[in-house]
Amino acid sequence: MPHLSRNDSDLLARVKRIAGQVAAVERGLTEKAPCADILHLVAAVRGAVNGLMDEIIVDHLDQHVAKPGLGDAERATGAAELATVIRRYSK
Amino acid sequence: MPHLSRNDSDLLARVKRIAGQVAAVERGLTEKAPCADILHLVAAVRGAVNGLMDEIIVDHLDQHVAKPGLGDAERATGAAELATVIRRYSK
Amino acid sequence: MPHLSRNDSDLLARVKRIAGQVAAVERGLTEKAPCADILHLVAAVRGAVNGLMDEIIVDHLDQHVAKPGLGDAERATGAAELATVIRRYSK
Amino acid sequence: MPHLSRNDSDLLARVKRIAGQVAAVERGLTEKAPCADILHLVAAVRGAVNGLMDEIIVDHLDQHVAKPGLGDAERATGAAELATVIRRYSK
Repeated sequence: MPHLSRNDSDLLARVKRIAGQVAAVERGLTEKAPCADILHLVAAVRGAVNGLMDEIIVDHLDQHVAKPGLGDAERATGAAELATVIRRYSK
Repeated sequence: MPHLSRNDSDLLARVKRIAGQVAAVERGLTEKAPCADILHLVAAVRGAVNGLMDEIIVDHLDQHVAKPGLGDAERATGAAELATVIRRYSK
Repeated sequence: MPHLSRNDSDLLARVKRIAGQVAAVERGLTEKAPCADILHLVAAVRGAVNGLMDEIIVDHLDQHVAKPGLGDAERATGAAELATVIRRYSK
Repeated sequence: MPHLSRNDSDLLARVKRIAGQVAAVERGLTEKAPCADILHLVAAVRGAVNGLMDEIIVDHLDQHVAKPGLGDAERATGAAELATVIRRYSK
């Protein structure tokens, strides 16, 4: 699959936010925060990771399947890659 | 979003299989099968439902975004619908 | 894992509801309903299946781990079974 | 919900590993790695986050529901907290 393109900076910002959320989980564990609080933090990480995955998939869809000007073969390849990803990574 | 097209019969076969799996769960409960067995059956239903969802999404991708001969505007619409679905229904 | 107990009738009612939702998906496919509508129905099935799974797990927790009067060994067994289930079936 | 207890150091090790995996995603984006590679890294993060969540839940089960010597009321409270968590955070 080719490179990410359109909104790499948006994706990077998401990853940095996730890194911050993971650091908050680590802090919570170190400071012996209540279990329910830590679960809440971990659930937030999970939500953010799922969101990141969605955006990478949508980015690929836009760049390698839907973009005007692609040839039929390029589109077919992009769609096949995307189908593989959807089947493999949907929970 | 337009109609399903390519492989409706495959999708229908999946749904009928799921109906059979749900009936097995019902039978398990009625016959007081062990909890672990029932959970196993329910997990199978969940896997099959996720698989059905993936195939509907891939079908839409093929028909309304990747198919040769679509206009740029049709592709853009199909991709936008797909992006909405991916963002909404990814866990 | 031992038998379900407390709220079998609640669980059965859930399964019957799920069967009805699966029938609605089948109808949607047969009648060539729009793809987005069908995805919505399938997502509802998935939510209901996840809910059923949660209730079976909570039922096991109540009956085989938390219930007053169980011996330490029974509780330990019940908790080990539950831990296995949580690790295996969490997405 | 009370504090985590039994295996905080195991949980902390998991969180540190997740932080490393998130850093790998960030690196992949910065270095414009192929989309499929990045998705693979993100999927690994998601798996690890789900695993962390499971272990926190199992830890709570062991400490606040199954542990020998707890009173009935303590167990009931622990089980109710756990049921809430299972219902809220199962996908």
